[in-house]
Amino acid sequence: MKVHHLSLLSLLWIQLTTTFAGKILVFPLDGSHWVNMRILIEELHSKGHEITVIRESDSWYISEKSPMYTSVTIPGLGGFKENFDTVVSQQLAVRLQSKDSSWWTLFWLIFETRQLVVKQFTEFHKKVSDIVVQMFEDESLMQSLRDAKYDLVLTDPGIGGGAILARRLELPLVYNVRWTIQGEAHFLIAPSPLSYIPFTSTEMTDKMTFPQRIINVLSYIIGMYGLSTISEPNYKPVVRRYFGPDVDYSTFFLEADIWLMRNDFIFEFPRPTMPNIVYISGFQCKPSKPLPADLEEFVQSSGDHGIVIMTLGTLVGKLPAHISEEIAAAFAQLPQKVIWRYTGERLANLGNNTLTVDWLPQNDLLGHPKIRAFVAHGGTNGVQEAIYHGVPVVGIPLFFDQPDNLSRLKAKGGAVVVNIATLDRHVLAEALEAVLHNSTYRENMQKLSRLQRDQPVKPLDKAVFWIEYVMRHKGARHLRTQSLKMSWIAYNSIDVLAALFAAVLLLLFICISVVKLMWRIIFPGRKAKRE
Amino acid sequence: MKVHHLSLLSLLWIQLTTTFAGKILVFPLDGSHWVNMRILIEELHSKGHEITVIRESDSWYISEKSPMYTSVTIPGLGGFKENFDTVVSQQLAVRLQSKDSSWWTLFWLIFETRQLVVKQFTEFHKKVSDIVVQMFEDESLMQSLRDAKYDLVLTDPGIGGGAILARRLELPLVYNVRWTIQGEAHFLIAPSPLSYIPFTSTEMTDKMTFPQRIINVLSYIIGMYGLSTISEPNYKPVVRRYFGPDVDYSTFFLEADIWLMRNDFIFEFPRPTMPNIVYISGFQCKPSKPLPADLEEFVQSSGDHGIVIMTLGTLVGKLPAHISEEIAAAFAQLPQKVIWRYTGERLANLGNNTLTVDWLPQNDLLGHPKIRAFVAHGGTNGVQEAIYHGVPVVGIPLFFDQPDNLSRLKAKGGAVVVNIATLDRHVLAEALEAVLHNSTYRENMQKLSRLQRDQPVKPLDKAVFWIEYVMRHKGARHLRTQSLKMSWIAYNSIDVLAALFAAVLLLLFICISVVKLMWRIIFPGRKAKRE
Repeated sequence: MKVHHLSLLSLLWIQLTTTFAGKILVFPLDGSHWVNMRILIEELHSKGHEITVIRESDSWYISEKSPMYTSVTIPGLGGFKENFDTVVSQQLAVRLQSKDSSWWTLFWLIFETRQLVVKQFTEFHKKVSDIVVQMFEDESLMQSLRDAKYDLVLTDPGIGGGAILARRLELPLVYNVRWTIQGEAHFLIAPSPLSYIPFTSTEMTDKMTFPQRIINVLSYIIGMYGLSTISEPNYKPVVRRYFGPDVDYSTFFLEADIWLMRNDFIFEFPRPTMPNIVYISGFQCKPSKPLPADLEEFVQSSGDHGIVIMTLGTLVGKLPAHISEEIAAAFAQLPQKVIWRYTGERLANLGNNTLTVDWLPQNDLLGHPKIRAFVAHGGTNGVQEAIYHGVPVVGIPLFFDQPDNLSRLKAKGGAVVVNIATLDRHVLAEALEAVLHNSTYRENMQKLSRLQRDQPVKPLDKAVFWIEYVMRHKGARHLRTQSLKMSWIAYNSIDVLAALFAAVLLLLFICISVVKLMWRIIFPGRKAKRE
Repeated sequence: MKVHHLSLLSLLWIQLTTTFAGKILVFPLDGSHWVNMRILIEELHSKGHEITVIRESDSWYISEKSPMYTSVTIPGLGGFKENFDTVVSQQLAVRLQSKDSSWWTLFWLIFETRQLVVKQFTEFHKKVSDIVVQMFEDESLMQSLRDAKYDLVLTDPGIGGGAILARRLELPLVYNVRWTIQGEAHFLIAPSPLSYIPFTSTEMTDKMTFPQRIINVLSYIIGMYGLSTISEPNYKPVVRRYFGPDVDYSTFFLEADIWLMRNDFIFEFPRPTMPNIVYISGFQCKPSKPLPADLEEFVQSSGDHGIVIMTLGTLVGKLPAHISEEIAAAFAQLPQKVIWRYTGERLANLGNNTLTVDWLPQNDLLGHPKIRAFVAHGGTNGVQEAIYHGVPVVGIPLFFDQPDNLSRLKAKGGAVVVNIATLDRHVLAEALEAVLHNSTYRENMQKLSRLQRDQPVKPLDKAVFWIEYVMRHKGARHLRTQSLKMSWIAYNSIDVLAALFAAVLLLLFICISVVKLMWRIIFPGRKAKRE
């Protein structure tokens, strides 16, 4: 049986070794998104491709010098991190007030802070579009980019700069994407029946009640409108200025060759998709490495009880002290050992079983045989690593995609989600109790783990394959649907239905007229009588 | 650069060698569909899986004994081939009368022969459902199938038997599919906006004019209605009888775990797809082998001019003599040598350059360096082989999927299509002239060939992977959308929109009432005056 696999392997070998070393221009999104773009760049670099990264002089995450890429540094406009921090603390404040966890409460709180969020996001996109203009007006920079003869532009469409640059340089375009300037990627390019596809931030599943479906439709209308008010004023003028009034701003950003989607159907609810969407979720996952000696010793001291780890990611410096005390108290009751990424003041309730650390090797701990549960905020990276290693999760969502990420794990039976606004030692202890003692949580996560590891091609290899594919074939237009070129009315066949309806009316009118006429001919007297 | 590919290869190695030998129950569709199912079975057998094939005692194509499978023979009800031959000659007659090639002419001709076609297809499906009932009532047969503990049922949903059997045995289900009992597979399970997705048999593309879009919508309505009248009376009672009245007959057949689709976006217009659709088009393609010595000698005698080959497939014994004479005359004018699969009488117009044969090694000739053009009817197999080898096509579509297959090649610039009803030596000579001397046809086919060969996993390996995947995970429910469980009204959010509309009306009513009330309070006199 094993012999026959050789043909596949040799074929792949031939395909892979005939790829060429290409030149890739990367327009990344700074901040945490850079972390996943970097993984892609690292892999592309290891395959022999030459990579150029566009960065701002005061970049938050993107360093100027790297063995993996050369950089083109644009004078920065500043304030990226500050802007982001403001958004984060606003969002956290909303979540902390949303005590009854209902969608309506959250909705009103978000509505209240909407002005502020819109202001921050608008400022942010304004900066991006200013940088694009700055680049385009720098003729020598543009000439050098043209002279470099790149094979494609790779970008994160959370900002609009990459797509605009690709069009300007007339280069194929690949997206590393989950969110775009106009919202979640699927909602923009794939048919998305709102009857079973929960809109972003609703925390609902693919099984919705009638009221939930109403909420979903309203969320979609409000959400899409909100997003358009953020992106339109910043990008529409730039698109118009450089590509003319005939280019439709809203479809402009949808014309990428390949959408490398940081998602898949192990994690996401099954839904319609498109030929040019390639699912690469879990591309960041890798086997765990041994722990540092002192940490390993602590982990081993847990005996058969094993360990619980907790981290709320890098964005939130610290939670309010009273919440941290409650968390510490819940942990103190556990027979497990706990490793907690915590950077605040000394906690009165901290148990002897709990080790607080500034940083923890998350992937190595999640892959450790002693791991029993993961207390997490639900960032994409953590959720994917939990799936990869099959570890059940207690989720404390804070903002952005975290509530939705955790609602998916919960729907698949791998997580218990608790509300930060009402979190106390009892709530957390109960959630921990569930994932530690009810084996179905672990079993469900291990099932997801088996699915995640059972793919014909590893997600990261798939990403590289399709980037190289676009270089080999100078794009992938044959995978892009005609729908992008159609008006809303034509796409939805409104005009056709109107024409058919008119035809039916006309037919009906003719029939009635004929019947009337015949009536008059057959009974000429009656008409006279009525007159 | 090559070193890094090893990690992918070793990973694949691990994944592939950990697959187990499974037991697969195949419920095939007899006739030409068996040819492609056999290729899958051959590959599965070579991977060590144990295969059982259900066949009728008087099967047309499926032999009882094979080194690749064991068979379960059901007493046949006869008439499969005769029934099929009747349909074929009816369809051919329609095509031969459809002189002006317009959709309307074809539509009326099909409408005229509709009664006959419906009768034949109804009879055909009646036989399949009778065989299913016969099996289910044979308790010892069913017990032996249960005892065998199969891992899954593999079937061609061109007939309904496999899905019904899988449900009865409570087994996972994989489809090898392009057409189902209810129509083209995509139209049943994926959103299919009729504004850019041409309906089956319309021969249109993804770029339609307004009148074409009207035709498309009408074709869809008529076509889907027609298909339901064929399948419903035969399968609905069987589904109801064995699975109860709660099982909806029309979604019953859509609940397969994986749809191995004999299609892809190299060939098909890009369109929405679904998580459980796996595209395996071209799985039958393989490199050419050397020709028999005498044929090779004939081919070499063509010199630099090269050769043209022609075949209209196995279904049509022969064309009317006057058409064959015209074809012969067109070939006689060519400087190329021609190999023509022709089984009729001696032709007066046959040129010295034309060799007629009973059978030809199509794939080996298409892969030969001397090949210049392929005159074909547009069957899926021939079209895929033409793409694989990058050979331009002169298409003479006869019936079934052939017109649509060729319209796709034509739209991609790889084929010239001629109408058999108006075919004469001049028309064919002109078409041959185009594909032989205008290099874009060959270039376009070679571009498709490069795309077809450039996939992360070979189509046949992909098919095997997903069949084994379903066995490993005992199904693939996580890839099946919730939409299958929803009513038409809920799926399309008609109820939600109605509720929102009602809410708006209510709000409007309340507003007006309040305004009226205030009016009365503020201007009490006016009301009195009016009374």
